[in-house]
Amino acid sequence: MSCWFDRVVRDVIALVLLTVGAASAADHMEPRLFHPGQDEAAQEKLTSFVEANGRPNIVILLVDDLGYGDPGVYGGGEAVGAATPNIDRLAHEGLRLTSAYSQPTCTPTRATLLTGRLPVRHGLLRPPQIGETGGLMGETTLAELLSKTGYHTAAVGKWHLGEGPNYQPQRNGFDEYYGFLGSVKNYTEWRDERINPAFANDPEVVRNIENDPNFIRSLIRAKRDQPHEELYELDIPAVANVDVDCMRYSVDFIERMAKEDKPWFLYHSFGKVHYDNYAADGFRGSSSAKTPYKDAVVEVDTLVGRVLDALEKSGQTGETLVFFTSDNGPEEDTWPDAGHTPFRGAKSTTWEGGVRVPGIATWPGVIQPGRVSDGLFDLADLFTTCAALGGAVIPDQRYIDGIDQTSFLLSDDGLSNREAVYYYMGNTFSAMRVGPFKFHRYIAEASSRDGIPGFLNGATLQKTFGVYAFNLYLDPKERRPNGIRTAIQLKRFVSLETRHLKTFKEEISSAE
Amino acid sequence: MSCWFDRVVRDVIALVLLTVGAASAADHMEPRLFHPGQDEAAQEKLTSFVEANGRPNIVILLVDDLGYGDPGVYGGGEAVGAATPNIDRLAHEGLRLTSAYSQPTCTPTRATLLTGRLPVRHGLLRPPQIGETGGLMGETTLAELLSKTGYHTAAVGKWHLGEGPNYQPQRNGFDEYYGFLGSVKNYTEWRDERINPAFANDPEVVRNIENDPNFIRSLIRAKRDQPHEELYELDIPAVANVDVDCMRYSVDFIERMAKEDKPWFLYHSFGKVHYDNYAADGFRGSSSAKTPYKDAVVEVDTLVGRVLDALEKSGQTGETLVFFTSDNGPEEDTWPDAGHTPFRGAKSTTWEGGVRVPGIATWPGVIQPGRVSDGLFDLADLFTTCAALGGAVIPDQRYIDGIDQTSFLLSDDGLSNREAVYYYMGNTFSAMRVGPFKFHRYIAEASSRDGIPGFLNGATLQKTFGVYAFNLYLDPKERRPNGIRTAIQLKRFVSLETRHLKTFKEEISSAE
Repeated sequence: MSCWFDRVVRDVIALVLLTVGAASAADHMEPRLFHPGQDEAAQEKLTSFVEANGRPNIVILLVDDLGYGDPGVYGGGEAVGAATPNIDRLAHEGLRLTSAYSQPTCTPTRATLLTGRLPVRHGLLRPPQIGETGGLMGETTLAELLSKTGYHTAAVGKWHLGEGPNYQPQRNGFDEYYGFLGSVKNYTEWRDERINPAFANDPEVVRNIENDPNFIRSLIRAKRDQPHEELYELDIPAVANVDVDCMRYSVDFIERMAKEDKPWFLYHSFGKVHYDNYAADGFRGSSSAKTPYKDAVVEVDTLVGRVLDALEKSGQTGETLVFFTSDNGPEEDTWPDAGHTPFRGAKSTTWEGGVRVPGIATWPGVIQPGRVSDGLFDLADLFTTCAALGGAVIPDQRYIDGIDQTSFLLSDDGLSNREAVYYYMGNTFSAMRVGPFKFHRYIAEASSRDGIPGFLNGATLQKTFGVYAFNLYLDPKERRPNGIRTAIQLKRFVSLETRHLKTFKEEISSAE
Repeated sequence: MSCWFDRVVRDVIALVLLTVGAASAADHMEPRLFHPGQDEAAQEKLTSFVEANGRPNIVILLVDDLGYGDPGVYGGGEAVGAATPNIDRLAHEGLRLTSAYSQPTCTPTRATLLTGRLPVRHGLLRPPQIGETGGLMGETTLAELLSKTGYHTAAVGKWHLGEGPNYQPQRNGFDEYYGFLGSVKNYTEWRDERINPAFANDPEVVRNIENDPNFIRSLIRAKRDQPHEELYELDIPAVANVDVDCMRYSVDFIERMAKEDKPWFLYHSFGKVHYDNYAADGFRGSSSAKTPYKDAVVEVDTLVGRVLDALEKSGQTGETLVFFTSDNGPEEDTWPDAGHTPFRGAKSTTWEGGVRVPGIATWPGVIQPGRVSDGLFDLADLFTTCAALGGAVIPDQRYIDGIDQTSFLLSDDGLSNREAVYYYMGNTFSAMRVGPFKFHRYIAEASSRDGIPGFLNGATLQKTFGVYAFNLYLDPKERRPNGIRTAIQLKRFVSLETRHLKTFKEEISSAE
């Protein structure tokens, strides 16, 4: 990669920063907070890194349905029956975010992470089910941006952003793909008679699924712009071991890339710990709790360790940003095959339990080790931040909700550049967080009060009235709406909310 | 301290271990689990330490009402508005327990910690209020045992184990005492018109409290077996600063002791973060959350740092076991002047939220750093374990519920020596935990379902029926009683329960 090229990009960024100043941002982007000293320190750090090493490699490790409270460093680990020494090590060597936010479900988060845009903009408002092929349309992915600046890009593992030929990873900016296109349960639920006997024991249902022409039920491999190749059917034993197999691919990728003279981007997405968890070979009973979910946590943690080892052995640790996260809060309806959050609510809601996820950014030598920050971070910010680290320019034809968090991550004791997090359930704007204050326009209520809690098995939205607000520092479990003491901030909330909602009108009018 | 003496004690201990074997224990003690390799490794480590350095110093840091979820290493810290870098450092340098148990309220825990006996045995079933003088009667404290083996012993800060002349620390095994005899709220609640106007604005109530001959409302100082000396009245500004003042005493004590040729025991008990929290000078607004409770957490953390600094500067770090804990779960009725637990329930209940507390054991060079363990630890075990570390022999005339956890703490990757934790609310046996399984005989229900949650403002006990059990690994928040899948363990539970309840009959009969 040419140093000349990087210097031009850097100068362009510097120019943009000078032009927009601290008071405003480009019209097509969510306004960010500026911390002048911090921004310069981070920019200097990045520049000197790039001059010495070229652009950094980027690894995103995305676990499915992992609870905020599952990893040891987030208060789980041993205490909830599954130690996570590798994830904990990753956190100790980098920055641990305590206010990282996903979307409430799987596909919306994945699309937001890769496009920097909220689901209500990119249109993937819920996870597609078997036979629903639609994916990203007219969006620009992080992989496309990084490809343009010379990155080799790979997606490995779960995709779940469309199974149709045009929606697969290799048609959306990835040079290579190895994985499976849907949620793990798509391949197993209808054939496990213990879990779903009404379907598994009905030959017609099974036949219909197996004959669905839009359902690809094999692990596939593909190269950029090429049709995919089917490798093996994802039956239950294959799904049990698919994460181990995909990690084998990623480790091989990391080793291959060490020999190439270009930066690379690896988007590794786990199938686990999404229901239904089946123990991979060698992992049954590996957790203290001895259950499929907890054994899956141990497996994911072990596989995270393999990434770190591969980076270490190939001498790329100091040149690689690793970001570890989950696509949403724990899913509770399938308990005990379910994770833990200390917060209220669960997957599919915008209670903190549904959207507050582990977020660990580690880059030895660049990101200060041992940091913990409560600064706001939306997974949409990964799009913008990784683009900035990769020297890419964000296209300006669509509104981008992600914020460039480079200076938050890279500056020692850096502060978040994000002023607010906007929460959505489907296309309903449901809440907003500013500092520790969260106020709700809609809340989710589980369908049943006398049964097992959970939100996927039917839930309702309730519209709030008055000022329905919490201080998350004082009431992290959102049990005591305290609007009367938060109303003093109402003007600021409403003003931010208005600004946010106005971005949709602008987008629509600019599209006309 | 003589090496000869220590060697005799060690041999006696080894002999006892040989005699009782793995199958039973002394009749007057809660039976312990034996881990032969582990026990020997720990014993060797302790022996060689004692031969080189003499007996270790012991510091117990007991915070009042601190929530399990308050320290950063327990998932709180930054995330709940008050960073705790010193407590986190302590944990990273030692062993962090995720299943340490107190009693549900203040005084019962303190008495249990110092006597190794459950409240239903020592009789202090709830915190005494203003004018109630009674304390420990006929009990042997840890301080008495350690004094006998040559320790210099000091109690500093909150006592709350009786205000009458015979119940004060200097009459219960401590060589010196500097602190206050009741809960901090005893000195302030009745004179703060914002908090308790019905009392504070009623001159008769105030006069009655001020004239109560049994109420010592000054900070006091005392030497062994001497009457106490009153130093200054604990009005609101004095209470605000009392922890800083007491820590000044403890730091001075640590420095003094460095010059003495004997081991020492410091029982330092904070007044904070018990309601009502008033900011000490320099701490107002010191937390991100900016509230009195969170500022108090920052203050306590800062003061913990002073202990560590004093040990470091006086060259005693490697010779000192520091144990950090809280006397019960967070108290919620005074929210927002309240802490955080990720668990169900709060202070005064035996839901996990009421009794699961931070527990950190640090002893650089002896306890392996960076350990985390879910092994069961009851604060009663501090009595027995510290006695063992100090070379003391436990008297055999009373039943001791505390277990010697030396090998759990000292062996690398050591396992807990405790098979079960027994939970009590007052004198009601309410629950038992074995491994991750907890089963409830009684549960606490808050008085009000439509108001602010909390258990001190009136609550009821409900008797369970059927097998009312949880797997705390799978359901740490105790929301899904799952007795039908736990009944397979019922025989073991009932057998342990029977064994436990039988200890009371034995005690009574041996006392007859």
